[in-house]
Amino acid sequence: MTGSKKNGIHDLALFGGARLFDTPRPIGQLAAPHVEEYLALVRQAFEAGQLSAHGQLEQQLEAELAAYHGVRHCIALANAALGLMMLAKHFAQDRHGEVIMPAFSFRGLPHFVQWAGQMPRFCDVDRHSHTLDLGSVERAINKRTTSIMSVCNFNSPGNIDGLCQLADEHDLPLYFDSVYAVGCTYRGKKLGGFGAAEVYSLHATKLLNGFEGGYVTTDDDGLADKLRRLRDGAINDEDFPGLALNARLNELHAAMGLLSLQQIDTIIAGNRRRFDSYLRAVEHVPGLSLISYPDASQEESNYEMAVLEIDSAFPLSRNQLMNLVRAEGLAISAYYSPALHLSEHCPKGLKIDSLPTTEWLAGRYLQLPVGELVSLADIGFIGELLGFVYEHGTAIADRLREQGVE
Amino acid sequence: MTGSKKNGIHDLALFGGARLFDTPRPIGQLAAPHVEEYLALVRQAFEAGQLSAHGQLEQQLEAELAAYHGVRHCIALANAALGLMMLAKHFAQDRHGEVIMPAFSFRGLPHFVQWAGQMPRFCDVDRHSHTLDLGSVERAINKRTTSIMSVCNFNSPGNIDGLCQLADEHDLPLYFDSVYAVGCTYRGKKLGGFGAAEVYSLHATKLLNGFEGGYVTTDDDGLADKLRRLRDGAINDEDFPGLALNARLNELHAAMGLLSLQQIDTIIAGNRRRFDSYLRAVEHVPGLSLISYPDASQEESNYEMAVLEIDSAFPLSRNQLMNLVRAEGLAISAYYSPALHLSEHCPKGLKIDSLPTTEWLAGRYLQLPVGELVSLADIGFIGELLGFVYEHGTAIADRLREQGVE
Repeated sequence: MTGSKKNGIHDLALFGGARLFDTPRPIGQLAAPHVEEYLALVRQAFEAGQLSAHGQLEQQLEAELAAYHGVRHCIALANAALGLMMLAKHFAQDRHGEVIMPAFSFRGLPHFVQWAGQMPRFCDVDRHSHTLDLGSVERAINKRTTSIMSVCNFNSPGNIDGLCQLADEHDLPLYFDSVYAVGCTYRGKKLGGFGAAEVYSLHATKLLNGFEGGYVTTDDDGLADKLRRLRDGAINDEDFPGLALNARLNELHAAMGLLSLQQIDTIIAGNRRRFDSYLRAVEHVPGLSLISYPDASQEESNYEMAVLEIDSAFPLSRNQLMNLVRAEGLAISAYYSPALHLSEHCPKGLKIDSLPTTEWLAGRYLQLPVGELVSLADIGFIGELLGFVYEHGTAIADRLREQGVE
Repeated sequence: MTGSKKNGIHDLALFGGARLFDTPRPIGQLAAPHVEEYLALVRQAFEAGQLSAHGQLEQQLEAELAAYHGVRHCIALANAALGLMMLAKHFAQDRHGEVIMPAFSFRGLPHFVQWAGQMPRFCDVDRHSHTLDLGSVERAINKRTTSIMSVCNFNSPGNIDGLCQLADEHDLPLYFDSVYAVGCTYRGKKLGGFGAAEVYSLHATKLLNGFEGGYVTTDDDGLADKLRRLRDGAINDEDFPGLALNARLNELHAAMGLLSLQQIDTIIAGNRRRFDSYLRAVEHVPGLSLISYPDASQEESNYEMAVLEIDSAFPLSRNQLMNLVRAEGLAISAYYSPALHLSEHCPKGLKIDSLPTTEWLAGRYLQLPVGELVSLADIGFIGELLGFVYEHGTAIADRLREQGVE
């Protein structure tokens, strides 16, 4: 019964009506390669007897990703989190200090730096790029700072030049969580070689799908060598440059990653079509807009996400709209909310600064369904739903308040 | 030219002769399932659209492993190292302390506990079981101790009752690295439910082959729930019980693990045939013996490893024999050598106790090729080689010393 029309607010799923989508529409990319092509590569790995890590497919994936990003080294890892942990640990050089990071970001980040023996130091973000605010970073730098972890968002990699300059001035290592920046450019240059290193994901929900996995890109020969030696769980006897971790990727994931990389232009083109559909679907609804991508004549983007901004002209709060729309079978989530420094992912007892832009942004966004499992027709239905909610906004808001949804 | 006969010491590969094996014989299990069965399961995962973690195969693997080990919970993980890190962190309860562990063990262990914010506290082992010595553990316990990580070796799970009693007396958490104890019993009960938890590996070189992967077994409902919530990289909003880590297993590995578990009796039977062949191959060589398994009428064993003990009746030192035999195409390694407290895997600046049994054991063993890629004929050739080396021992030792191999 996908796409059933709403004739009145009693037709909304939250109020007892039929859901818009029987199968929930996801917010991840989930672009799978053709199953036969994948199985052929796995058969090849089996026949080569490469059951353990660092086989031919992994080496090929590292070479192709390095070429794609225009960097000297790609180090394939079991996942992106382990890459962030290894970098935070490496740059801390045995100290227990603080890693500067945005408070408007993925909730795993404060966990990962603590695994590296560091405390997160949350900074505010820029109103438009949603990336680290230079002034906030400068105020946060102190003698306990061990590194700066900037996050490149889908809509902007941030003020990379400004951050590099600030990090240089304070002699601090700077690296990027670039999970959402595959294929994007900064001043015309593809992401991958900025700062000391960048970390990417090959999780199934990301642009490049290795089923699971991640990788680090860097132009630093010494860092690349160190990460390669540390990712194998101290399996070798050689001189050890730090704390070893089992963070290997293997052929099963490398095979997926290779096929995904072959398809990247097609995947991005599909993302762009869906994003353009969302633009058309939302433009007629007052109070709603989509976070935009950089001008395509200036910078390349991957159109990986569709994030809805809800302002005061819309009759429902962001949380009210989220509850209403989730019930219809959209696996949407609040985008980076609550802010990390106000969430349960903030280490207990940490001194908290007020971060006004982050706190304001954290109340405004919804991440909409995207990826290969969402059709353009689905997006049309979602647009109709949002228009319907706007039209019946007052009645819906009253009913939601009665149910205790603010 | 596999199996080429040695007519004189000039025929030894290290002295310029042809290698015994053109393709190196490995020391890991590497028992792959039938490729068609595996590809069929992967196709099933694709068709189910289960590209991310916690799909049907993973759930089935967890249920079957829990049943196999006779425990309430199996928590599938990306690898065993992450399981050990999560347990050391969990039991430390936010303290920076010490984890008691054997010094005669896998070199990754001191790295993993440091990722958990703990320092390793190396203890001596028992001469025969090669597992934690109770007296050494008792002397090492102090107010900084956060947990005891005992390692179950292939030849013995150790004095589990004694360790449990000691841990109870001191109110310390005790858990087991049981990577080499799949299918083994202690006092007739299968390993899996001893101590607070046990950690296992699904790496390709281990008895159960998930290509990569690991799991924790436990009867503790609260611990199982915590590990399940922490392994997902803080992907959920719920109340967080500790530091999250991305340690998920996925369907690609679960499929391998399931097929491997189906084959486990066959794999163990193959291991036993190879071990019995090694016994026959080595019994005629003075100064060489194999580490034995428990009496099969008393305890079950998995016969996963064949470890050669070299005593003073043999004309070559362990290191001389290792160099000589490696050159012949045997991917052998010194078994747990150097001892961890004397290795580069020992944290710098750590106060080191003398651990006499560990230090003595670390000079005596060689891990021989095992697993599906080693035939009974190969083992016959290896026996002949060892006999040849014994016969020509004096001449070989002289020549090795000339080459600087002591």
